[in-house]
Amino acid sequence: MKLKEIAEFVNGVLKGPADLDIIGIAKIEEARPGELTWFSHPRYKKWLSKTQASCVVVLNGEEDVSDVNTIKVENLAVTMEALLLKFYPLTPLPACGISKLSTIGKNVNTGKNVSIGDFVCIGYETEIGNNTIVMDGAYIGNKVKIGKDCQIHPNAVIKEDVFIGDRVIIGAGTVVGSDGFAYNRIKDGEHSKYRRMPHRGGVILEDDVEVGANSTIDKSVIGNTIIKKGTKIDNLVHIAHNVTIGENSILCAQVGIAGSVNIGNNVVIAGQAGVPDHITVGDNVVIAAQSGVTKDIPAGITVSGFPARPHMESNRAYSLLIDLPDLFKRVKKLEEQSPPRRDVPCKQQ
Amino acid sequence: MKLKEIAEFVNGVLKGPADLDIIGIAKIEEARPGELTWFSHPRYKKWLSKTQASCVVVLNGEEDVSDVNTIKVENLAVTMEALLLKFYPLTPLPACGISKLSTIGKNVNTGKNVSIGDFVCIGYETEIGNNTIVMDGAYIGNKVKIGKDCQIHPNAVIKEDVFIGDRVIIGAGTVVGSDGFAYNRIKDGEHSKYRRMPHRGGVILEDDVEVGANSTIDKSVIGNTIIKKGTKIDNLVHIAHNVTIGENSILCAQVGIAGSVNIGNNVVIAGQAGVPDHITVGDNVVIAAQSGVTKDIPAGITVSGFPARPHMESNRAYSLLIDLPDLFKRVKKLEEQSPPRRDVPCKQQ
Amino acid sequence: MKLKEIAEFVNGVLKGPADLDIIGIAKIEEARPGELTWFSHPRYKKWLSKTQASCVVVLNGEEDVSDVNTIKVENLAVTMEALLLKFYPLTPLPACGISKLSTIGKNVNTGKNVSIGDFVCIGYETEIGNNTIVMDGAYIGNKVKIGKDCQIHPNAVIKEDVFIGDRVIIGAGTVVGSDGFAYNRIKDGEHSKYRRMPHRGGVILEDDVEVGANSTIDKSVIGNTIIKKGTKIDNLVHIAHNVTIGENSILCAQVGIAGSVNIGNNVVIAGQAGVPDHITVGDNVVIAAQSGVTKDIPAGITVSGFPARPHMESNRAYSLLIDLPDLFKRVKKLEEQSPPRRDVPCKQQ
Repeated sequence: MKLKEIAEFVNGVLKGPADLDIIGIAKIEEARPGELTWFSHPRYKKWLSKTQASCVVVLNGEEDVSDVNTIKVENLAVTMEALLLKFYPLTPLPACGISKLSTIGKNVNTGKNVSIGDFVCIGYETEIGNNTIVMDGAYIGNKVKIGKDCQIHPNAVIKEDVFIGDRVIIGAGTVVGSDGFAYNRIKDGEHSKYRRMPHRGGVILEDDVEVGANSTIDKSVIGNTIIKKGTKIDNLVHIAHNVTIGENSILCAQVGIAGSVNIGNNVVIAGQAGVPDHITVGDNVVIAAQSGVTKDIPAGITVSGFPARPHMESNRAYSLLIDLPDLFKRVKKLEEQSPPRRDVPCKQQ
Repeated sequence: MKLKEIAEFVNGVLKGPADLDIIGIAKIEEARPGELTWFSHPRYKKWLSKTQASCVVVLNGEEDVSDVNTIKVENLAVTMEALLLKFYPLTPLPACGISKLSTIGKNVNTGKNVSIGDFVCIGYETEIGNNTIVMDGAYIGNKVKIGKDCQIHPNAVIKEDVFIGDRVIIGAGTVVGSDGFAYNRIKDGEHSKYRRMPHRGGVILEDDVEVGANSTIDKSVIGNTIIKKGTKIDNLVHIAHNVTIGENSILCAQVGIAGSVNIGNNVVIAGQAGVPDHITVGDNVVIAAQSGVTKDIPAGITVSGFPARPHMESNRAYSLLIDLPDLFKRVKKLEEQSPPRRDVPCKQQ
Repeated sequence: MKLKEIAEFVNGVLKGPADLDIIGIAKIEEARPGELTWFSHPRYKKWLSKTQASCVVVLNGEEDVSDVNTIKVENLAVTMEALLLKFYPLTPLPACGISKLSTIGKNVNTGKNVSIGDFVCIGYETEIGNNTIVMDGAYIGNKVKIGKDCQIHPNAVIKEDVFIGDRVIIGAGTVVGSDGFAYNRIKDGEHSKYRRMPHRGGVILEDDVEVGANSTIDKSVIGNTIIKKGTKIDNLVHIAHNVTIGENSILCAQVGIAGSVNIGNNVVIAGQAGVPDHITVGDNVVIAAQSGVTKDIPAGITVSGFPARPHMESNRAYSLLIDLPDLFKRVKKLEEQSPPRRDVPCKQQ
């Protein structure tokens, strides 16, 4: 594509030679002549003038850099999404049909154009919707319902009684519908031991939910663990039994959500943060990375730290932590100055 | 079942119509007429009067709510366990025999009524006890010993030299017996590099140990990583090489236990907490969620925070963290008042 | 082997009977007569005199204990590595050839002596170098390149467009090349929703990289996620898209590295620590367990805590945390003594 065509395609303003040929897209620090790049983060400011790319896509309002060709656009991320798909079209996942090296249980109902890979096991009375792809080595239990246009990646495990909507992605190695971690402590002679509560519920993943790799989502004792429409979950995330997560929320890698937690819509939970059991998190809440939530969070709040508190306050407090040793010294000094006052107060002099 | 029958079955006291038919169990906020529910957590207090359930199982001592049918019981969790099993009996896992689509190594010894699923691999000289079920896609290495009545869930991996007792559950995707993470740093010309220590030991999981999904338990350099009788481990937990964990302990999701740690009996470690290498944790210790242990913990203590300290103190300290900015201001104010004193002390006036 | 032979083999100084036969190696607290052990950590000091081992390998400089046979050596870990391999030689992984129960795509190129286990799937146009072993149940996608002498452990998943050097180990259940977690937020009527950025890049794992069990390494939007030569990664580690990790670095269990992070050479990141996106970590940095990095870390620094700060300062600050309640009391007391001064200042008296 020529620069002019690209600028038109993305509805951007070109500064540079209209006829220059672009043959690919690369990172700003790796791009070579003939390639297009983009300026996505202030971190890469120095590369804006140093890049060897033939053109840089930048946000409207970005200052011009002499000798650097640019295309200015309204929405950088969406523009790059479109350009990536233009230059590197997604190869559709192989519609391989149903492999003879898979095993399919009784009364399994598969829609049109379903692909089931090699060494896949599917239990009985399971339904799989049109165009859904179950990749090699995945396991689907009994009485599972999977909608249409879903992707179940290699070696993922979906246990019995899981209900999955349309356009859902389950990453490689992820386990959905494992038993929750709830035990009764039972007397056993002088000692006690744990006995697992029966988990007779299920998991519901609504339309457009996406889960990364090696995450785990447990099923409930009764009723369902529910992830609502459009929510995206990263890798190595743990979601315990009986949790409800609202629509269009984001759970980053290694987040842990304990049992019976209720999370609202449009929530963002950053990496390694944890929410303990029975907590309610309101809509539009942001929980910063590594936060340790300890109580309900009302809608619209950003929290951080342990215990998680409103971010501005928490941030101020944590930034002072490093000055604690100095504060202790200062207080000690004040104390050394103060004691005489009690004994010989000023006004009595 | 009629309410009267249920009350008798659980040895509880019924307040409500003896003849009412109950057709199922549901969560307090979702239950409908004809269903039974239970009141498990103060969070659901408002639902106690609002629920549409035909009867609520409550703890002895719970106050009566007019118009709400109740069955009062001594132990709520154990009662609900019994009722769940009564209304929704566990379907025994399929005794499918040994699948022709599995591969079994030489000199493998399987007991009576063993089930081995599709696409399972079992190494040589491995033993599997009576009634044990190895589900589809699981991998069992060489010289493994698995007791009776165990469940190995789909796509779990059990490496060579792992010894597993009776009634052990290994969750989907969990890896037991991977090499520990121990390296020697070796000079390599001007630089240095890491060379893995050989791991010639094993892992022992005693009777009634249960491990969730996608957890990892490493084997030792020499000797064994040991999880003792009745200990329960949740999802995404990491247990390093040469760790010993006592009996009837609980490790919640995403807990990390580093190498050569020694944990006692009846310990509870809550989610995302971490214990560094060579630490000893006494019996009956509770480690709160996200705690970062830094030194040995004597028996019977509850700890929290980073560095983990006795919970009452730690909790008090962490709850004051948010007031640090204010404290800094107060100390500054005191200092502004104080300096003159040094120079013009009161008693010299 | 006789003690004398062992001492010669490890180039150590023997104190004890030259002719004593040693039949194996065991942990210091478990060793029995006839076995050799080693004294690796001050924790085991008490065992140095109590052990039943026939000889203890100790570091040069260790004080003699009467009645305890010792071999003194220069480098304890390297000595034990050599002895473990001498007493318990590694059984080479089975060179089983290419299993008839695996499925190999078109134009796959396998070197000499390659082993491919049962129920392995390999995509099209993939290359696998000499002596590499792909164990049972692993999945290798399309256009993957794996070097020689590699081990891909059971049920690992390597997605398309991953490049792996020589002598690389990928642990059981680990996923390499999953899509990164990057979404565009798109208006959708009154609401908004997330749409995944296309991930058209790959992952490069250079020579001698080793990854533990159930870890995840995502691929980039464009360009590559890169792990450089000799870097070792433990279990349940998350490495996001577009990350670069230098040579001979160490990432312990449950570490999380967010997108576009750049980590130097010889870095050590201890368990459960997290690094947020776009951060640069210099060479030779050490990041303590559970640290929460919030800004760039210059070369050579050890950091700890949240927010991660130089360890000496951070450690001092965190150790004072527990005294905060006391500090608040002390400041309150100072304030109670101080207020009169403002109103009736000394020098006006």
